[in-house]
Amino acid sequence: MDNNIVVMKFGGTSVGDAQKIKMVARKAIETKASGKDVVVTVSAMGHTTDELIELSKRVSASPSRREMDMLLSTGEQVSIALLAMAIEEQTYKAVSLTGSQAGIFTDDVYSEAKILTIDTKRIFDELKDGKIVIIAGFQGINQHGDITTLGRGGSDTTAVAVASALDARYCEIFTDVSGVYTTDPNIVPGAKKISAVSYDEMLELASSGAKVLHLRAVEFAKKHGVVVHVRSSFNNTEGTWIMDIDKEMEQAVVSGVSYDENQVKISVFGIPDKPGIAARLFDAFAGANINVDMIVQNVGEGGIAAISFTIKNEDLLIAKKVIQDIRDKLEIKEIAIDTDIAKVSIVGAGMKTHPGVAARMFACLGDNGINIEMISTSPIIISCVIRQDKAKEAIKIIHECFELDK
Amino acid sequence: MDNNIVVMKFGGTSVGDAQKIKMVARKAIETKASGKDVVVTVSAMGHTTDELIELSKRVSASPSRREMDMLLSTGEQVSIALLAMAIEEQTYKAVSLTGSQAGIFTDDVYSEAKILTIDTKRIFDELKDGKIVIIAGFQGINQHGDITTLGRGGSDTTAVAVASALDARYCEIFTDVSGVYTTDPNIVPGAKKISAVSYDEMLELASSGAKVLHLRAVEFAKKHGVVVHVRSSFNNTEGTWIMDIDKEMEQAVVSGVSYDENQVKISVFGIPDKPGIAARLFDAFAGANINVDMIVQNVGEGGIAAISFTIKNEDLLIAKKVIQDIRDKLEIKEIAIDTDIAKVSIVGAGMKTHPGVAARMFACLGDNGINIEMISTSPIIISCVIRQDKAKEAIKIIHECFELDK
Repeated sequence: MDNNIVVMKFGGTSVGDAQKIKMVARKAIETKASGKDVVVTVSAMGHTTDELIELSKRVSASPSRREMDMLLSTGEQVSIALLAMAIEEQTYKAVSLTGSQAGIFTDDVYSEAKILTIDTKRIFDELKDGKIVIIAGFQGINQHGDITTLGRGGSDTTAVAVASALDARYCEIFTDVSGVYTTDPNIVPGAKKISAVSYDEMLELASSGAKVLHLRAVEFAKKHGVVVHVRSSFNNTEGTWIMDIDKEMEQAVVSGVSYDENQVKISVFGIPDKPGIAARLFDAFAGANINVDMIVQNVGEGGIAAISFTIKNEDLLIAKKVIQDIRDKLEIKEIAIDTDIAKVSIVGAGMKTHPGVAARMFACLGDNGINIEMISTSPIIISCVIRQDKAKEAIKIIHECFELDK
Repeated sequence: MDNNIVVMKFGGTSVGDAQKIKMVARKAIETKASGKDVVVTVSAMGHTTDELIELSKRVSASPSRREMDMLLSTGEQVSIALLAMAIEEQTYKAVSLTGSQAGIFTDDVYSEAKILTIDTKRIFDELKDGKIVIIAGFQGINQHGDITTLGRGGSDTTAVAVASALDARYCEIFTDVSGVYTTDPNIVPGAKKISAVSYDEMLELASSGAKVLHLRAVEFAKKHGVVVHVRSSFNNTEGTWIMDIDKEMEQAVVSGVSYDENQVKISVFGIPDKPGIAARLFDAFAGANINVDMIVQNVGEGGIAAISFTIKNEDLLIAKKVIQDIRDKLEIKEIAIDTDIAKVSIVGAGMKTHPGVAARMFACLGDNGINIEMISTSPIIISCVIRQDKAKEAIKIIHECFELDK
């Protein structure tokens, strides 16, 4: 890395109105003035995307994804133009680039496109010209020259992908929180900001409900070794660095506690305990594009099995259809759907070398009368399904138990 | 012309809300169903452009034109996406194209770009695929791949230019009036819709204040021989055809009466009657990009000349500065500015072969006690400057005098 490029990403709330756009302009200028080459990616202003979706519903019940991308991509285009104007108003040079102009090429999957490659020529030319380069997040162009969007969290992915393509020093994600916390500070006021986490920990935190950074962006950062700095757009304090941490510093055993209330537990009773039944069940879900998270299988008396698993709340409707379709084929006797659950997880890269962490978590919960209904473990995460109305209490208990506030 | 292509253009009020967009979709589908290949160009919805301009003012006092074009071009992009969705909802095939995707290449003059060429490959491909092709009006792309806009009336120009490039049968401009009238129907209820006018007549009508079609679009249509049909978006009746009319039918002597209240008369008194003074005066105006419309020069007693001329109201501020600057140099004694004027014109390609038309117009006005302050004539237009408060009366009188209501 022989350049001095920094990529700064600002989300929709950070560019929510003219005043905030001016604030973002100042942040970009400050960074430029400190001697860096600055690339900024932004999302659409505030609720723009939702408003455009609402507008589309008024002309079509099921708009095509190509046209939806054509429509939604205007949101970021408005933001980049306004931000460039705000920077130029301070007599700094700036240029706004759409995804297409920035050379962000994606596959053909409208609404959920993946970035294939970034042709960085234009960006480098503009940087060489002394300009602050502002790139529309969330969007790209496919081989046909058509506009695609990257789906939820796409602006984070744009920022990380651009940082990777430019071999930038780091990618700063500005958000409305000051970084990644040991748990949700709204639930545990003593939650501490984590100064650095590994990619793997961040992946687990993101997939378990910590919303500061989108899963796909973290995956991209991990794959390409992009150093990410998550920080507040409202102050100048250091946030959380996400990086290849193993090499650099000793691991904390447990880094944080995350939770997810957006899960449903489905229990299927009375499945004949024959090989391949579970596979057929989950095949059907995969075919309907439903992600199954935790799975627990028990063989009961008489060789009759029960399987419980969790899925996302928004997939429940389709999941019910899937079950209806295969119910008779698989000789399923009874199905129970439980929406009153929550998943509580501890994440920490240090766990893999510290035995007994799981036992300690279960003991903490048990000692406080919280029943654990499902468990899943991996080298760096342990998740428990509990009653939803116990979730906040559980988070506080675990946070204290592992002394994360110390 | 061996194709069956029709270009349909809908302005901002025609796509003002979801309901109206659905109506435009139906019109496009009807035309497609009648066996035509359909290309639609649309403007931004209703007041979108004004709202975006307002937004830009909140971040910058003088936004750069490049970023302004980046911002404003989103307006049409929203329209084309929604229209494509509305058409697809009726199970017809459609595709929306930005100016860039439609291959509309312009020069580098942001905010007032001129179309240089249209690469029609993509449009033809999509038409061959049976799709209704929807193109964003008002915008293009320059040699650097940057978005440009065509300035006021740009969507009309896009439509005509696309029609020309595709060698379309004709270009239909849908608007909130049913065509070109002998005069403003709001002033003269007996005003008649003209079934056909020549390009030259339409140019005079457009430049004299008839607002159905932008001057630049008419010029483009004339230059490239595009047949234009101006008609209402709210009914199916025939509108006005603009075409090379000389060849096809006999001319009416006078086609219509137009007026323009947006003019200012500037009178400059006491200029030494030396050669070149007028030239220097108008050079100075040209240098400030001010268009001078009518000019009348009189040499008074003692070789002291007076020049009166008219300019557009919006240029008055700059015009005053220009006069201030050259006042002493040209030894100008006195300047009078009169904003209470109106220009009333009769337009007709038949006038050039019918002497006495001007005399008849002057007599009509004179007989009714309306004083003519300035006159200018050309083979197909005669314009008179009169008091503004007499304008409506004058229009009625002339309309009756030439029996345009018959």
